Amino acid sequence: MKKLAEQSAAELAAMLKETKDAYEAFQAKKLSLNMARGKPGPEQLDLTMPMLETLRSDADMHSASGDDVRNYGLLDGITEAKKLFADILGADPAEMFIGGNSSLELMFACLQIAYVKGIAGCTPWSKLDEVKFLCPVPGYDRHFALTEYFGVKMIPVATDENGPDMETVRKYVEGDASVKGIWCVPVYANPTGIVYSDDTVRAFAALKPAAKDFRIFWDNAYCIHTLVENARKPLTINAACAETGNTGIFYQFCSTSKITFPGAGVAAFNTAKENLAELEKHLGIQTIGFDKINMLRHVRYFGNAENMIAHMAKHRAILAPKFAAVLDALDREIAPLGIAQWTKPEGGYFISFNAPKGTAKRIVQLCKEGGVTLTGAGATYPYKNDPDDSNIRIAPTYPSPAELAQAMELFCIAVKYAALEQLCK
Amino acid sequence: MKKLAEQSAAELAAMLKETKDAYEAFQAKKLSLNMARGKPGPEQLDLTMPMLETLRSDADMHSASGDDVRNYGLLDGITEAKKLFADILGADPAEMFIGGNSSLELMFACLQIAYVKGIAGCTPWSKLDEVKFLCPVPGYDRHFALTEYFGVKMIPVATDENGPDMETVRKYVEGDASVKGIWCVPVYANPTGIVYSDDTVRAFAALKPAAKDFRIFWDNAYCIHTLVENARKPLTINAACAETGNTGIFYQFCSTSKITFPGAGVAAFNTAKENLAELEKHLGIQTIGFDKINMLRHVRYFGNAENMIAHMAKHRAILAPKFAAVLDALDREIAPLGIAQWTKPEGGYFISFNAPKGTAKRIVQLCKEGGVTLTGAGATYPYKNDPDDSNIRIAPTYPSPAELAQAMELFCIAVKYAALEQLCK
Repeated sequence: MKKLAEQSAAELAAMLKETKDAYEAFQAKKLSLNMARGKPGPEQLDLTMPMLETLRSDADMHSASGDDVRNYGLLDGITEAKKLFADILGADPAEMFIGGNSSLELMFACLQIAYVKGIAGCTPWSKLDEVKFLCPVPGYDRHFALTEYFGVKMIPVATDENGPDMETVRKYVEGDASVKGIWCVPVYANPTGIVYSDDTVRAFAALKPAAKDFRIFWDNAYCIHTLVENARKPLTINAACAETGNTGIFYQFCSTSKITFPGAGVAAFNTAKENLAELEKHLGIQTIGFDKINMLRHVRYFGNAENMIAHMAKHRAILAPKFAAVLDALDREIAPLGIAQWTKPEGGYFISFNAPKGTAKRIVQLCKEGGVTLTGAGATYPYKNDPDDSNIRIAPTYPSPAELAQAMELFCIAVKYAALEQLCK
Repeated sequence: MKKLAEQSAAELAAMLKETKDAYEAFQAKKLSLNMARGKPGPEQLDLTMPMLETLRSDADMHSASGDDVRNYGLLDGITEAKKLFADILGADPAEMFIGGNSSLELMFACLQIAYVKGIAGCTPWSKLDEVKFLCPVPGYDRHFALTEYFGVKMIPVATDENGPDMETVRKYVEGDASVKGIWCVPVYANPTGIVYSDDTVRAFAALKPAAKDFRIFWDNAYCIHTLVENARKPLTINAACAETGNTGIFYQFCSTSKITFPGAGVAAFNTAKENLAELEKHLGIQTIGFDKINMLRHVRYFGNAENMIAHMAKHRAILAPKFAAVLDALDREIAPLGIAQWTKPEGGYFISFNAPKGTAKRIVQLCKEGGVTLTGAGATYPYKNDPDDSNIRIAPTYPSPAELAQAMELFCIAVKYAALEQLCK
């Protein structure tokens, strides 16, 4: 197969006809598959079923602190859960807060507190004319939805394989006091799968924000979610900030949503003690505390961070072949055409695909009408606005291998079809 | 014993001396007891331990709708949990939303949405000069903390054994468009234990609010938490509003916090479909969904509403004697003095005690210094401001019977002591 750019108009027209036929043949199969979200597959959920039996009716229901986890109290979570998550993140257990089943909920709470009450002695965002957030792109649509909810103006920042463009980040953060935060997924980013380089992490730790209430929203959702045997050991934001003394600049989040159960995991939050103390004062208004039985269930099941990391190897055994199947299909069907680029992540839940400019919406539509729902084109950009209409997030984790093969067959046909339509216009 | 009012100055002085001695003797015991909150005791928590084994590692983890409860999805909760809570409340399952472990969190969410985004097409409260809430007193301190958080001006409304003074409520709600809500605990109210009369419920259902975004926050926290064998069947807000057609006027809340586990129960929310649809649009930003495994655990354990109500008889067997011990002590030690009044609730978690005006703070202080922490005086009023400095919330549920006897001995001494100090001034 030749690159499309090297083919004659007649060759392209013939190829369009052929691809259209293939597409219509596929449509006739009346498939119905959903690849829109980064959901674990059922076989991954099965991995953690024994955890449900960790706490039997005769279990000791006291935490290490002596508190009965069944009762009210302990807004910040149980001691042993703090230790477990701190070890995962490379954080200080005294700087941990353990939440409910959703780290998104904790991110929302942090934004809500800054919006309604203000933090660090600053004016509540609701009283300001303009609040801005930096949004490395492509990024996570639910992050962007949170900041959009609070009327925050979102500014896209380009990323490469080392992370966000730190020159641009620094310029905004240090020069504009209305910039109050930045969304980061530092490890196996959503959707690119990249890991921020140590230099990038150091550059974050060295920021001197113009706004006292600027915070890096460091969503470490995929911190131990590796797809390769020897995972990289990226510099932690904790270590980098300890060096610069800039310890209050970040809010770090993680959860077991993709370690145990997405619907019933445990979320954790990490920030400097003075930040925690301020946030807890407000969080204590909206809840008496989160589910400590589920925290204890997790801690008793895993025992320690090493075992939790070992558990991830079982996920990897299921996920790595799915990622390989997607990449193989792209290498086989799309690479020879020279029309698109994609990431080859070493972890996380997504592959980021850049289609020919102006075709992403069309590709997603073709897939939809062919029976496969993808993440909406544009979803990886603030306001769902991908100026190039190019980026598509591929989520290979939920479908079975057989479904994935079918879905990728359709995806590759759709990419070709849209590219050829454009070239033959 | 004579009423204090009938005693001479010399008799009072002698009694003060005697009471002071009794108090100091008690202090010497160096007790340390906490009766500040409405917490179930450990033996109540033991009642539900078998629920932890409801979902074993081989359990079918699918809800009635066929959804895998372990995965993301179903923001509004699982079908069978909606049915269970709807049956408890006398509501329509289609008007239910099942949340996490905290109904307080759902109340906060409702306020936050009205504050940040606005509801029913109305201006967000954050953009208004003044927003008011009616607060029947004495009431629940955490309710007041929620409205205070959002800068809402709280207006106390008197209550009697039938509920809030509905003449006053009607005047405010129908005459003042800045009145956006009212806090209600309609059944076994916190702290009085009263049950709103059917006439009161009908009066609520007949309200014609000046503000389109006025809502009754109907916190049915103790709906099945009876202390007597044949519990009353109060008119539900659902039935009353169905009659008036005023179906969108209330937000109803309940939870299993005091049925199963306070730290790990399930909260539920009930309102008209159009309200639900609007709120869910916003709730879907802050979370992907609540813990559906815990919902399924509850539903599989109880099976149906009848069994859940039957389960409450086990709580009653533990709690009724504790309430009786408090009431016996008050009848024996305080009633003859003719200085105080208190409620004799048929359900709920509290006894509301009205001490001689101007002594509540002193009584709480005396108890504290004697080794028993009570709910702060004033906590049952907005802004912690009890204009009479009279109301004290007694929470008999957590201490053991022996501890409760000691605590009540101290409490009665403290009430006498404070009353005598005042009379001998």
